[in-house]
Amino acid sequence: MTETSPPAVPAFDPVAEGRRLLRQSPYGALATKDRQTSHPYASLVAVAPDTDGAPLILISTLALHTLNLLADPACSLLLADIGEGDPTSHPRLSLMTTAREVEAAAAKPLYLACHPDAALYADFADFSFWRLEPLTGHLVAGFGRIVDLAPAQLLVPSA
Amino acid sequence: MTETSPPAVPAFDPVAEGRRLLRQSPYGALATKDRQTSHPYASLVAVAPDTDGAPLILISTLALHTLNLLADPACSLLLADIGEGDPTSHPRLSLMTTAREVEAAAAKPLYLACHPDAALYADFADFSFWRLEPLTGHLVAGFGRIVDLAPAQLLVPSA
Repeated sequence: MTETSPPAVPAFDPVAEGRRLLRQSPYGALATKDRQTSHPYASLVAVAPDTDGAPLILISTLALHTLNLLADPACSLLLADIGEGDPTSHPRLSLMTTAREVEAAAAKPLYLACHPDAALYADFADFSFWRLEPLTGHLVAGFGRIVDLAPAQLLVPSA
Repeated sequence: MTETSPPAVPAFDPVAEGRRLLRQSPYGALATKDRQTSHPYASLVAVAPDTDGAPLILISTLALHTLNLLADPACSLLLADIGEGDPTSHPRLSLMTTAREVEAAAAKPLYLACHPDAALYADFADFSFWRLEPLTGHLVAGFGRIVDLAPAQLLVPSA
């Protein structure tokens, strides 16, 4: 009866979903703390995966989120499937991270591979690359599908 | 020469852009502070405008962001044009707000008008409606187009 069986539904794999969101989300929402008031601040960032999947961002000291990270590198990045209908019906990942500035030499080619238009300003003096080092990931994939993921589950070590 | 003149480019109107994002964004990214560590936490929410345009959300005490807001109502909501190509090429609004729980009687019909599927769980005991009271809005609409907006500019008073 193989020919008439319905296709198998893939089992929910939270590690695979977390890694997919890290590697295939070109944009995310960054949560930082206001450097003066400590009030949460949500902003939009373009992201690209580092070799192990950790998010890289390219941000300007003219932007509030950069000033906030310079004062306190604790932040969170939301990655979700946007542009595919209702994003709350798809898995999304809230990543708790510590941001740190990294050398442009390694980050720039990885970042420009995902965001080629950023070549227009990547070398501006006010812009720098930051890596968002995962501390923990909170994956929400629907009712009963909420899973915390450790960095070792989210990142793929370089060979 | 009227017939051959190029169409006029509308002037940049930050108040109109801010009000548009408040009223036409069905989803947003919420930044709260972890109730135990104070680490920023970014999460996805479905939003609907209150009568004056302030965002309404419907959240569950099973979700981390709700527990965070119960401990500290200071939060931020990012509203952006998602699903229309590169969201960093469109205006977006980072709203600094104080969240407060509101009565379902007034909020529910406004919320369900935007998110009819939420009728499935809007009456569950763990869900409640919250209004995100704007403190200030930070509109980013491109290079040189970064404007702070006051609540009186963002909200439209009820008649």
